[in-house]
Amino acid sequence: MPDTIPPFPTIDPLDTAAMGAALNRWATRAKPPGSLGRLEDLAVQLAGITSTCPPPTIQRPAIVVFSADHGVVKDGTSAWPSQVTALMVQTMTQGGAAINAFAAVTGAEVHIVDVGVDADLSHLENIHHHKVRPGTDSIAHGPAMSRGDAARAIDVGRIIGENLIAAGVDCLVGGEMGIGNTTPSAALIGALTDTPAHLVTGAGAGLPAERLPHKQTLIASAIERAKQHHDPLDLLAEIGGLEIAALAGLYITAAATRTPVILDGVIAGAAACVAEALAPGTAARSIAGHRSSEPAAAIALHHLGLEPLLDLDLYLGEGTGACLAIPLLNAAIAALTHMADLPNQ
Amino acid sequence: MPDTIPPFPTIDPLDTAAMGAALNRWATRAKPPGSLGRLEDLAVQLAGITSTCPPPTIQRPAIVVFSADHGVVKDGTSAWPSQVTALMVQTMTQGGAAINAFAAVTGAEVHIVDVGVDADLSHLENIHHHKVRPGTDSIAHGPAMSRGDAARAIDVGRIIGENLIAAGVDCLVGGEMGIGNTTPSAALIGALTDTPAHLVTGAGAGLPAERLPHKQTLIASAIERAKQHHDPLDLLAEIGGLEIAALAGLYITAAATRTPVILDGVIAGAAACVAEALAPGTAARSIAGHRSSEPAAAIALHHLGLEPLLDLDLYLGEGTGACLAIPLLNAAIAALTHMADLPNQ
Repeated sequence: MPDTIPPFPTIDPLDTAAMGAALNRWATRAKPPGSLGRLEDLAVQLAGITSTCPPPTIQRPAIVVFSADHGVVKDGTSAWPSQVTALMVQTMTQGGAAINAFAAVTGAEVHIVDVGVDADLSHLENIHHHKVRPGTDSIAHGPAMSRGDAARAIDVGRIIGENLIAAGVDCLVGGEMGIGNTTPSAALIGALTDTPAHLVTGAGAGLPAERLPHKQTLIASAIERAKQHHDPLDLLAEIGGLEIAALAGLYITAAATRTPVILDGVIAGAAACVAEALAPGTAARSIAGHRSSEPAAAIALHHLGLEPLLDLDLYLGEGTGACLAIPLLNAAIAALTHMADLPNQ
Repeated sequence: MPDTIPPFPTIDPLDTAAMGAALNRWATRAKPPGSLGRLEDLAVQLAGITSTCPPPTIQRPAIVVFSADHGVVKDGTSAWPSQVTALMVQTMTQGGAAINAFAAVTGAEVHIVDVGVDADLSHLENIHHHKVRPGTDSIAHGPAMSRGDAARAIDVGRIIGENLIAAGVDCLVGGEMGIGNTTPSAALIGALTDTPAHLVTGAGAGLPAERLPHKQTLIASAIERAKQHHDPLDLLAEIGGLEIAALAGLYITAAATRTPVILDGVIAGAAACVAEALAPGTAARSIAGHRSSEPAAAIALHHLGLEPLLDLDLYLGEGTGACLAIPLLNAAIAALTHMADLPNQ
């Protein structure tokens, strides 16, 4: 099976010529130097990502919500049962989730992808059907999935990303829906950043405090198992999940095609750490949309060398925090593009 | 003259019934409780401001950029000469400033107001001509202006605000352009929050470090003079400036008419402190758009009991940081309005 997995693309470094042009252009805009703060850095990064100065306006952003289930939920790591995944996917396809509301405000389209929900969703419309398997096995008792399943889930992210870019999408936002997915995310971030379980474990979507020690013990055990793997694909197969793998595939595809991509919260952070391990250089081409209040999120962003744009105490996932950052990208681009030169005094 | 100044309106407290309804509505949306973080608080505040749950979508936001000059610039407190105020106002009327770029991205209209520029701008189009006087006197040597001038400048903010609201504007953003205006802003915030000069003095729009002690000494002296005034209108006349007074008038008008208003940086913070002193209750009806990197900005927001939505190291003014917060208001409103109920498990 390993031999059938195609190599991951080589990711070009950020385009330093375009970044230099952006820095020079900022220096002569009609404002005090540096007074647009983080938005100046953002426009420079976007120039580096797109190899264009000023970078093009984002005209067709798309949110991709990968959805999957996690066997570990049966071992008591989540406040919610796995059935809620399918219910929330259905809510999203009907336009009733937070991400639908935010996408409408920011002018983004929403794509829902079933990459591994543990329910038959074949009757649903407004969804991309790419189920690799109906959820992972519980990492409390063994590996989440096979190496081949992990590779196939990554490929779902690649295919969706390539198709959207071919259709004209010019900015990708990765989102997810998967009850229980803060557990594998914390374990992946712990393993890839060498951080102990007590620093990466959070309450997720509202786990009661008395159940946190059990979750932490389980994550500690998963981190130990994960560290035995030196191949990031083996590590991903050991811990999961299917939507995390698909997100990693999306991020790598965005980086390989020089398409701006915005990271969301802790699950996105785990996927971005995996993507960076599989295809180094991906992180430098990723934009951190926000800092989730889930503790491992900030650890992942620090590991990736990224500073989040927003910090609003969100921990919902779905791509919500990343979606809210879309107008900031266009504001940075618009200022660099349309501001006049400094007035002659 | 004091007798000719009309009383300021009484500001109603936030509507607790509408806020309670918003809290109840959040509790049954399809998401973990509290997982939209600060946006949940924001939607509750907007319900309290507008006395409506869910609060209405913001459909016609307007940025109002009040512009004026400051005599104190001749005493060496700014990196830029006063002539740049008129040049930047002209740039704004031509659409070439940062605020024009940001307003286009966030769907806001921009109104430029000459409330006290020290130059003849009568030839400019796309500007509201309400010059009270051509700049303030230098606060290094005496009061900035008369009590009557301060009242007239406040009234410019009131008139502009009332006219825009009558025309259908449903969210106001106060911006400003005035070389030298971080000096009176720091002095006002220092006096109204009882904070010493060294904590409120910043580099403004790039004052070299070697000139900061001079600016700080001047601000310390202004704070001492300001503290002698117990009437906030006298304090405003003592320190200035004209655009700060107009902003205070705009904020009070927004609060009196239950119109959402978004605060910008340190000049806005000074104006909001003045507005709260003139018409108590105004601050609770104001939304803090961002935290400017100018040090007095955070002190003003703390004094007003406000938490900023964005923190992007901006220090440009013009209303730029507040403008960037507009999509966050509509995202919070959209989520509260359009999200489905929690799925039945």
